[in-house]
Amino acid sequence: MKHYIGADNPMRAQFDPKAGYQAKHFSWSFEDGVGTVTLNRPERKNPLTFDSYAELRDLFRALYFATDVKSIVVTGAGGNFCSGGDVHEIIGPLTKMQMPELLEFTRMTGDLVKAIRHCPQPIVGAIDGVCAGAGAMIALACDIRYGSPSTKTAFLFTRVGLAGADMGACALLPRVIGQGRASELLFTGRAMNAQEGLAWGFFNALHEGDALLDAATAMARELAQGPTFAHGMTKTMLSQEWAMTIDQAIEAEAQAQAICMQTEDFKRAFEAFAAKRKPVFEGD
Amino acid sequence: MKHYIGADNPMRAQFDPKAGYQAKHFSWSFEDGVGTVTLNRPERKNPLTFDSYAELRDLFRALYFATDVKSIVVTGAGGNFCSGGDVHEIIGPLTKMQMPELLEFTRMTGDLVKAIRHCPQPIVGAIDGVCAGAGAMIALACDIRYGSPSTKTAFLFTRVGLAGADMGACALLPRVIGQGRASELLFTGRAMNAQEGLAWGFFNALHEGDALLDAATAMARELAQGPTFAHGMTKTMLSQEWAMTIDQAIEAEAQAQAICMQTEDFKRAFEAFAAKRKPVFEGD
Amino acid sequence: MKHYIGADNPMRAQFDPKAGYQAKHFSWSFEDGVGTVTLNRPERKNPLTFDSYAELRDLFRALYFATDVKSIVVTGAGGNFCSGGDVHEIIGPLTKMQMPELLEFTRMTGDLVKAIRHCPQPIVGAIDGVCAGAGAMIALACDIRYGSPSTKTAFLFTRVGLAGADMGACALLPRVIGQGRASELLFTGRAMNAQEGLAWGFFNALHEGDALLDAATAMARELAQGPTFAHGMTKTMLSQEWAMTIDQAIEAEAQAQAICMQTEDFKRAFEAFAAKRKPVFEGD
Repeated sequence: MKHYIGADNPMRAQFDPKAGYQAKHFSWSFEDGVGTVTLNRPERKNPLTFDSYAELRDLFRALYFATDVKSIVVTGAGGNFCSGGDVHEIIGPLTKMQMPELLEFTRMTGDLVKAIRHCPQPIVGAIDGVCAGAGAMIALACDIRYGSPSTKTAFLFTRVGLAGADMGACALLPRVIGQGRASELLFTGRAMNAQEGLAWGFFNALHEGDALLDAATAMARELAQGPTFAHGMTKTMLSQEWAMTIDQAIEAEAQAQAICMQTEDFKRAFEAFAAKRKPVFEGD
Repeated sequence: MKHYIGADNPMRAQFDPKAGYQAKHFSWSFEDGVGTVTLNRPERKNPLTFDSYAELRDLFRALYFATDVKSIVVTGAGGNFCSGGDVHEIIGPLTKMQMPELLEFTRMTGDLVKAIRHCPQPIVGAIDGVCAGAGAMIALACDIRYGSPSTKTAFLFTRVGLAGADMGACALLPRVIGQGRASELLFTGRAMNAQEGLAWGFFNALHEGDALLDAATAMARELAQGPTFAHGMTKTMLSQEWAMTIDQAIEAEAQAQAICMQTEDFKRAFEAFAAKRKPVFEGD
Repeated sequence: MKHYIGADNPMRAQFDPKAGYQAKHFSWSFEDGVGTVTLNRPERKNPLTFDSYAELRDLFRALYFATDVKSIVVTGAGGNFCSGGDVHEIIGPLTKMQMPELLEFTRMTGDLVKAIRHCPQPIVGAIDGVCAGAGAMIALACDIRYGSPSTKTAFLFTRVGLAGADMGACALLPRVIGQGRASELLFTGRAMNAQEGLAWGFFNALHEGDALLDAATAMARELAQGPTFAHGMTKTMLSQEWAMTIDQAIEAEAQAQAICMQTEDFKRAFEAFAAKRKPVFEGD
């Protein structure tokens, strides 16, 4: 595939997460094709604020265009993932808002989940310690989730008087752990322990806390080896087919896979197999 | 939230399940916000009849409006949950009916499941012993299910020459235990034992038979503490988002949660957290 | 139910899989109502070719009309199920095709899955050894899956530079094993071992390799005892309700089951129960 437009592709957003991007409300690093988001207010167990929600949303929207970022790790600093929306910085102000502002807030948080699902990069969550509320939803929005034996995941919206219906929880959680288990967690707000999370398919694996980020980064590096275009298509179709009929999904995949069969990476794989070599993907 | 209409709200059904309601074809009790339905023909393992189906449907439809009933327990008397539609009182007559009557019957049984899903109360099933046919579907329609180690759950429609497609089984069961396991149970009609039911996510927990109803009632009482309005929204959205796309579901939850953020219970929760107290919900 | 048209029903396809049908690119046998498809190039672990894809598609389309075939077993010869699309016979030519031909290929493979889902017979997979790529998708399209302790199932499209979106994988796999586990398998292409497959609900049971085909055939024979019309309706509805709302699914089942209540097999079952006999179904 010859590129007629090149790296300064005008169809992409101007904001490039990899070119010296300094996040204000969390930390961002980029190495070997892997971008890492670290929620980093460890003294408060990494709560979310209006600012960090909005910056995360904008980052994941920009990642939609950032083809040099091949995969992403999301984690938290200091042994916890995220304690959710801060009680004083978020919940207090919300109790004083009128409906248009409330809806602006709930749409912003939902738009973060949409942006995580819509960017083409596979996302690996490294989820230790406390994973609560909106933090649990960010974890749920990842593609692959690693926990530690002490991770506690709580969809605790009900504990602050709200519905379990937050940021897509009633749609996403049942498809990951089953409708019955999801119902219990969303009605009670109780914490799912790490062993439950593994047995129920919320976590793909558990790693001891000091090995957790390395394991997630290793998986992200493996995924960053590509095939990048095809991985992006896998991610698109996992969301896209969510509410299709079986026949619609099969036709959609016939089209999607035919597109992938025109990539150079597909040819490279065939040539490598024919020569009994391991394929090296280049992303086009 | 100030109430302009009050307890005699004319938008609600006239029939109030809590005000001295005496069920004819099962038993009904109401205490501390928890309504309990007990199927009670234990000598026949609590079968369903035309009458009990219709009365259950009408009860759950009335519960849609019964805001004083905060949560519900469904159970069976005498160590069994429910043996399904009675062979002599239901199956015999059905073999003699013409299509309009047959469809009236299958719609009535389906309407019972719809009414269970549509009422706002979280429903806890206490499911011991035999749980078969339409009884298994009533169990499946609950939000949280507790079994005992000896519960046998059989979607046995195929054993009487019918399809596994009964009362929504082909839609609901795969989302709870997975498509592959559901296919086997619906094609063969074989009983799922309690350990399978727990491992597969059909049961949220198992309790010994003599502790089962107490455990279910304790959970229902906890849920009856509220937040009642938000719990109703959780339940609505768990059904409402069933066939939405991910983006539609996230927008739907942005609206639903913004509504919940205008409740007094949300403010009460914030004030309690700020004062380091446990919140006490009042339901508005 | 009196038959006005009879065995030479002109609404059916002319091609009858049971009447002396000799498959060219796999083997087909028919006994006691059970049809068995055996992929049989064991020296290459039973790969698929353009020819075998097309013949399998045509066979399952013809089975739509073959009411004498009551259930189906799909298996592989020589201790493996299927290694997927042959590298030299399929992948090589695909790398040289233009889009219309590519789409013709991906639609043919997708049409095979559609045909497997649309035929009315319950299908039991006997899946030993290697189960890879398109082979894994054929396994996934079955209704009931038996593996052996050494079965390795890999959705390895990504290994050849393609998307995990192949033949419906992004729609079907998440509903069987959960969205999180499916995401990992589809992004990494790694093999799911047999114990994972059993724990996650991909396999309904594991049997030692030398007992595997017998177990699958025994299940298929049990299903071939009927009720055949109702089994076909169960299968139809399991697919048909995939993307319906709960209320739509319940109404659809009210209609589907009312149709089944007009079969003779339903009457036979009632009469047998009333006489305390085991029902014998005849399929009408």
